[in-house]
Amino acid sequence: MGQYAAPLRDMQFVLHELLDVESELKQMPAYAEIDADTVNQVIEAAGKFCADVIFPLNQSGDLEGCHWNDGEVTTPKGFKQAYRQYVEAGWPALACNPDFGGQGLPRFVNNALFEMANSANQAWTMYPGLSHGAYECLHTHGTDEQKRVYLAKLVSGEWTGTMCLTEPHCGTDLGMLRTKAEPQADGTYRITGTKIFISSGEHDLAENIVHLVLARLPDAPVGTKGISLFAVPKFNPTADGGIGARNGIKCGSIEHKMGIHGNSTCVMNLDDALGTLVGEPNKGLNAMFVMMNAARLGVGMQGLGLTEVAYQNSLAYARERLQMRSLSGPKAPDKPADPIIVHPDVRRMLLTQKAYAEGGRAFSYWIALQIDKELSHEDESVRKDAADLVALLTPIIKAFLTDNAFESTNHALQVFGGHGFIREWGMEQYVRDARINMIYEGTNTIQSLDLLGRKVLGDMGAKMKKFGRIVQDFVEQEGVKSEMQEFINPLADVGEKLQKLTMEIGMKAMANPDEIGAAAVPYLRVAGHVVFAYFWARMARIALDKQANDDPFYKSKLATARFYFAKLLPETAFQIRAARAGVKPLMDLEAELF
Amino acid sequence: MGQYAAPLRDMQFVLHELLDVESELKQMPAYAEIDADTVNQVIEAAGKFCADVIFPLNQSGDLEGCHWNDGEVTTPKGFKQAYRQYVEAGWPALACNPDFGGQGLPRFVNNALFEMANSANQAWTMYPGLSHGAYECLHTHGTDEQKRVYLAKLVSGEWTGTMCLTEPHCGTDLGMLRTKAEPQADGTYRITGTKIFISSGEHDLAENIVHLVLARLPDAPVGTKGISLFAVPKFNPTADGGIGARNGIKCGSIEHKMGIHGNSTCVMNLDDALGTLVGEPNKGLNAMFVMMNAARLGVGMQGLGLTEVAYQNSLAYARERLQMRSLSGPKAPDKPADPIIVHPDVRRMLLTQKAYAEGGRAFSYWIALQIDKELSHEDESVRKDAADLVALLTPIIKAFLTDNAFESTNHALQVFGGHGFIREWGMEQYVRDARINMIYEGTNTIQSLDLLGRKVLGDMGAKMKKFGRIVQDFVEQEGVKSEMQEFINPLADVGEKLQKLTMEIGMKAMANPDEIGAAAVPYLRVAGHVVFAYFWARMARIALDKQANDDPFYKSKLATARFYFAKLLPETAFQIRAARAGVKPLMDLEAELF
Repeated sequence: MGQYAAPLRDMQFVLHELLDVESELKQMPAYAEIDADTVNQVIEAAGKFCADVIFPLNQSGDLEGCHWNDGEVTTPKGFKQAYRQYVEAGWPALACNPDFGGQGLPRFVNNALFEMANSANQAWTMYPGLSHGAYECLHTHGTDEQKRVYLAKLVSGEWTGTMCLTEPHCGTDLGMLRTKAEPQADGTYRITGTKIFISSGEHDLAENIVHLVLARLPDAPVGTKGISLFAVPKFNPTADGGIGARNGIKCGSIEHKMGIHGNSTCVMNLDDALGTLVGEPNKGLNAMFVMMNAARLGVGMQGLGLTEVAYQNSLAYARERLQMRSLSGPKAPDKPADPIIVHPDVRRMLLTQKAYAEGGRAFSYWIALQIDKELSHEDESVRKDAADLVALLTPIIKAFLTDNAFESTNHALQVFGGHGFIREWGMEQYVRDARINMIYEGTNTIQSLDLLGRKVLGDMGAKMKKFGRIVQDFVEQEGVKSEMQEFINPLADVGEKLQKLTMEIGMKAMANPDEIGAAAVPYLRVAGHVVFAYFWARMARIALDKQANDDPFYKSKLATARFYFAKLLPETAFQIRAARAGVKPLMDLEAELF
Repeated sequence: MGQYAAPLRDMQFVLHELLDVESELKQMPAYAEIDADTVNQVIEAAGKFCADVIFPLNQSGDLEGCHWNDGEVTTPKGFKQAYRQYVEAGWPALACNPDFGGQGLPRFVNNALFEMANSANQAWTMYPGLSHGAYECLHTHGTDEQKRVYLAKLVSGEWTGTMCLTEPHCGTDLGMLRTKAEPQADGTYRITGTKIFISSGEHDLAENIVHLVLARLPDAPVGTKGISLFAVPKFNPTADGGIGARNGIKCGSIEHKMGIHGNSTCVMNLDDALGTLVGEPNKGLNAMFVMMNAARLGVGMQGLGLTEVAYQNSLAYARERLQMRSLSGPKAPDKPADPIIVHPDVRRMLLTQKAYAEGGRAFSYWIALQIDKELSHEDESVRKDAADLVALLTPIIKAFLTDNAFESTNHALQVFGGHGFIREWGMEQYVRDARINMIYEGTNTIQSLDLLGRKVLGDMGAKMKKFGRIVQDFVEQEGVKSEMQEFINPLADVGEKLQKLTMEIGMKAMANPDEIGAAAVPYLRVAGHVVFAYFWARMARIALDKQANDDPFYKSKLATARFYFAKLLPETAFQIRAARAGVKPLMDLEAELF
């Protein structure tokens, strides 16, 4: 049941009409030769793969789940074959360095691939998804030897990767981790401990798995300053790059979860497992953050993917399902009832999904382009600005897009009425899968603390001013045009309110740092809406320019922009009040009196 | 895993300190002898039953689910034995008419029982829960013969009941239903058709099941005016009240669902099933509405029950789980990290659940008391007023409490971090179970249309004025007291805003009835907050009066009231804007351009 088609038209709109990636790429020497047609062809082929190969496995994978047997994990029927096709088509190599067999395409193309793959099958996509993060981490922090051993295998997809952070007593608080690494005479390490919640930690898709494991060296400082990162393979590689002896890292069990049943969530037991140090001793969190930032953008794409596929399915249902007459008179008088898309509240639920999907696409593709600029732009000051924007906005991508996805998938379920609650219709799976995205890779509360505490207040608003300048320039340029008033006025208004709120919280936090914790979650919602309002206003500008075109795409875009400003942006009125209410109503009650 | 203890102290606070039920009962001849001690004893015993007998079956029932075999349904292990204990203890008879073996207690006592039972095990509770609705329907609309045959069996719990409304092509739109009833020479009917989503439609808990089935008589008018209600037993009763021949109503299959796995959701095939007419021909929806209103209050209690149990579990976890230090300095310096309850956002999630649980308890027990007054008060004008208040506020009970429960159970899951997503911790089950409550017995959108279209605008605001008067009296009485300003000012403010919003929508709806559909969902959220603000202000009044008492209960109550006004009530700022934005942003886009 269910359907998915890659939203190619909207992707092309974002990439070419909104972001003009072809021009941008010309300023990045590594990508200067890549034109719009190439980008479109790759995305089209990726969409076909996702829709034809992995989407059909989504529901069956959820029903079957993974199987654990004596340390080995078997993935649901079809997953392995689909992965083979994925590898054969070269998809793992898309945005990788040609020196290691990569195709050298920009990251935003990979981002588009992952949006579609997550629409089609989030649980399956997590296997290659985590590999890409391991590739990025080793590419940035690995020794030459580690690069030689691992990168080509990760790029080809022959091997996959994981990140092993969480332990039973510590998830958010990595400073408490206990896994130990003992240095050996030959420069390697022997690692012992227990890791939990390791996504894709064991499976049958690839012949080897390289685990990036956080552990403590002997006599390491306590807390987060005593954590080092190690590459720990499932099978020790042989000198010629083959598969050697089984290493002492084994899957003790897999979790039974609310969703993403097709992905193995593993307890990994390390017993004198052989590993090599990645990056500097005691600087493991630094090295891991490369992977975590990639993963956080990846989780945002999981949210976007689910929002899109839930929208497509609930839209199809709303057009077909006949129930009740429109309050303003029959709209399908030849039928026994009207299709439910005539009802205003059904439209509210559909348009919410549409506005969050298209807004999330614009924002996240723009961020992926900023990552390309950060890493590859010819101009250093552009690279620096892009890096700041990526750092600032990554927590918003992760938390805002996944909050929105949970709301969106729930709306989609609700459009189906009672059928939404029944497994065979497939909608409740999207809700269950979407739920984890608000938790892992740093809960959405942690994202909000990262945004407000570290990224905004941590540099006295410097990074935020950079984004504010972009918005301000657009407001100044468009604010004088009457047809843009309906978008520019609320954008400018919410932007000013965010600025004012930021200063207020900054002042209060000087007296009591808990004010940051009290305001962070509503603050992130407000900041997310400022970002969305900016992108929706820009998209409205393009749609206004082209609406004479007769292409109904622009009419739809403009109506969705208007819906966003009328019905979703006003959430900020609530969140600003909640943020402003401060810490007192939260902390007044002693813990024992709850 | 998990825990549940009946919140007896808060229940007693609501019943005695807030509602003073003993005085109220003195004005109801049927209940004049019942004192506070009796109420407390019954509730305490009910709480013990729920915590000891059905709570331990909640998680195992979810994991095992129901089993269908050739038309027979077996419930999860332990359900049948627990039901036998429930029957033996006389719980089905609690609020039933003594003429039929009932214990003649007021409905609010039953309400308290059902809150606790839903906290303990919603799926199990739906078996006796629907029986009570069938009892109410037959008690009000049944013939003497139907009462003689069925009521004593439903009161004793020997038999259970269902309501059979939905068909594959119609849920919300009952006017489209096709099940046919053929009158027989002896005054009975032969009924043929297919019903879906029939909760508790088939099971092994009781020896017989009486289904209340909506069907059409031959030549009935089309639409909702041609629907009649029939009592259709699983086994035809014998003359002496025993079990006779198997009737032609069979369970064709059971659904595989997102949640409430322990409750059988049945496809019921009727093939010349023998039934008797309940109420007047073609007036079946009227008769069914008795049951549906009871069921809607019942669904609200499902929401309340889940909110309470999720709160209890996430609170216990937040006190124990050590992770990170407080931003304002260590709070448990002797431990490796602080318990997470020190973090402001964890408190926000806990206090949201607490405020929604306690506010929902106050509101719903008050509504149950209004039902008692409607049916049993000595003064006719009091009965009329109570009936109006119940009619007005039932959709708010159903939709607001279940929306809040979904938010609350999700907060509880989030407090558990990654463990919240893992089945064995039990939190994700609460989210899955809570999800259905927003759909069945009329989706929450339908509730909002019932509230705004029928209950508020349908009588030009007459019923709403009655509730407004109650709020206004309290505001006038307390508004002059300085210590109550922090509660009375926002209550009065949001009350005025609701009044203004109501008039605006009423005006706009005269030009375009779709304005009702566009505003209804946010309108219900605003109305729900007005009700909650009123009850929280009243509870704050009591807590202020008694805070010198040294009983920390009042301190906690006051802090929760302050949290509610500071952090949750501001949602109205969003919803009022969303409601006011009207229908245009929803309807502008042609359906084919989505």
